[in-house]
Amino acid sequence: MKEEIMEFIEKTVYEYEFQGAVVGISGGIDSAVVGKLCVEALGRDRVYGLILPERDSSPETVSDATLVCKYLGIDYAIKPITKLLRVMGVYKLEPAAMFIPRKLQENYVRKKMRELSYSDNPFIDDLESKGNAEFLKGLAYYRVKHRARMCMLYLEAERRNYVVVGTTNKTEEATGFYVKWGDDAVDVEPIMHLYKTQVYQLAELLGVPERIRRKAPSPDLVPGITDEFMFGMSYEELDRILMKLEKGKTLKGESNENVEKVRKILEAAKKRKLRQISLR
Amino acid sequence: MKEEIMEFIEKTVYEYEFQGAVVGISGGIDSAVVGKLCVEALGRDRVYGLILPERDSSPETVSDATLVCKYLGIDYAIKPITKLLRVMGVYKLEPAAMFIPRKLQENYVRKKMRELSYSDNPFIDDLESKGNAEFLKGLAYYRVKHRARMCMLYLEAERRNYVVVGTTNKTEEATGFYVKWGDDAVDVEPIMHLYKTQVYQLAELLGVPERIRRKAPSPDLVPGITDEFMFGMSYEELDRILMKLEKGKTLKGESNENVEKVRKILEAAKKRKLRQISLR
Repeated sequence: MKEEIMEFIEKTVYEYEFQGAVVGISGGIDSAVVGKLCVEALGRDRVYGLILPERDSSPETVSDATLVCKYLGIDYAIKPITKLLRVMGVYKLEPAAMFIPRKLQENYVRKKMRELSYSDNPFIDDLESKGNAEFLKGLAYYRVKHRARMCMLYLEAERRNYVVVGTTNKTEEATGFYVKWGDDAVDVEPIMHLYKTQVYQLAELLGVPERIRRKAPSPDLVPGITDEFMFGMSYEELDRILMKLEKGKTLKGESNENVEKVRKILEAAKKRKLRQISLR
Repeated sequence: MKEEIMEFIEKTVYEYEFQGAVVGISGGIDSAVVGKLCVEALGRDRVYGLILPERDSSPETVSDATLVCKYLGIDYAIKPITKLLRVMGVYKLEPAAMFIPRKLQENYVRKKMRELSYSDNPFIDDLESKGNAEFLKGLAYYRVKHRARMCMLYLEAERRNYVVVGTTNKTEEATGFYVKWGDDAVDVEPIMHLYKTQVYQLAELLGVPERIRRKAPSPDLVPGITDEFMFGMSYEELDRILMKLEKGKTLKGESNENVEKVRKILEAAKKRKLRQISLR
């Protein structure tokens, strides 16, 4: 698994005559794994890390991402995008919560997300971009953050003639759990064939620091919204159902409710995947 | 031609349950034509225009784009992205030319572009991202502008549940004359099946103001760099060669040098079109 990915990264970078790779380091497990694979494939001198926090990032984002860059042994820069988002008018969309304790912010956002939900599942509403003005504002608000990060990653990569390496995994890809033209807008996707639970296995193999492997996965876009809150189930359960559906295996023993939820997510994600339509 | 496109826009917007369309209005002919087609398909109340100038935009950009919005009869906003680009550190890459007359700026950029060219054709170097550090810096410098515009267009569109409509034509698409994850990152492409010269014909039919139809096409990203400067020939000649190549017609009568140039551009563009590679 590891060797195949390293070979793929090396081959792609050299075939297209790039000099190295830029990776956005979030402090999460996917970018830690992708960073490590790039370092092993290209050498740490050819991998550059960018840490791009903003106002709503978790208080641990910068320290965790820095820990990852040190584990990788790569050059990196911390470039907060708060000012950039402020200039774009993004923070005007949602109230500043500067003086509210993080825990309260997180509870507030989760409650609001549930209340605004059009169906019984805010993630499906998100995939379908369905909801009232307040809900739509929330979508615009979080999605622009990954797009702004994409701009920053390419600004760095193009000056160096590096590729931008993506960190989308198979679970995210299948369920549409990414931002169109945001974290999906990269040159190379080295772990898109691996379910999240497989990324965890690889992380252990690669010696990713335990702290990073143990934290709850989160898109880190809005306080309180973790991956598992959005999916409404654990990654273990989600991946197990996805794999059974993929291989046409029996779903006996799985929760009917969650199987139905996954089917609905896949359907909504599939429709959304019509990324661009042209008349030909 | 016109009816087919209108039907396509209408069908797409309603099929995917969008409420309308956002179009970035540049003051050029493509966005004027696309804007008009959207207005005729959806009604002018469902089309919103964004004018997104920046430090290096032509002095006529805002007035021309405003003229287009008035011709369309749509609501629009002028949101300069200069501050946004400054915060991103973009202008640090190239010297401010505030006190230099526009004509001198334009000549300077063209001269520099030619000097920095790696092969004899700066456009091919651009497609291949080949050049020294100074050249690569120039690529990063201009490309981020269209990406920042994409962020602004989606920020507006997502709040309204509108589609972002693209303005890429067939000549641009074939030659790779667009910014990856910039002006190509849209939901709907209604004129990507039309060569630039066909867009001109359609513009006349649609009554696009003469001033817009007469001005020299330019990406308006860097002073002095027009489309025809980049291609090294007129659109008439380029489209004629592209059409003959597409239909396998004889190229007798065409300049050998320019046919060769077009072939090289197509080859470089094709390679670049491998937009994203994943391991599956």
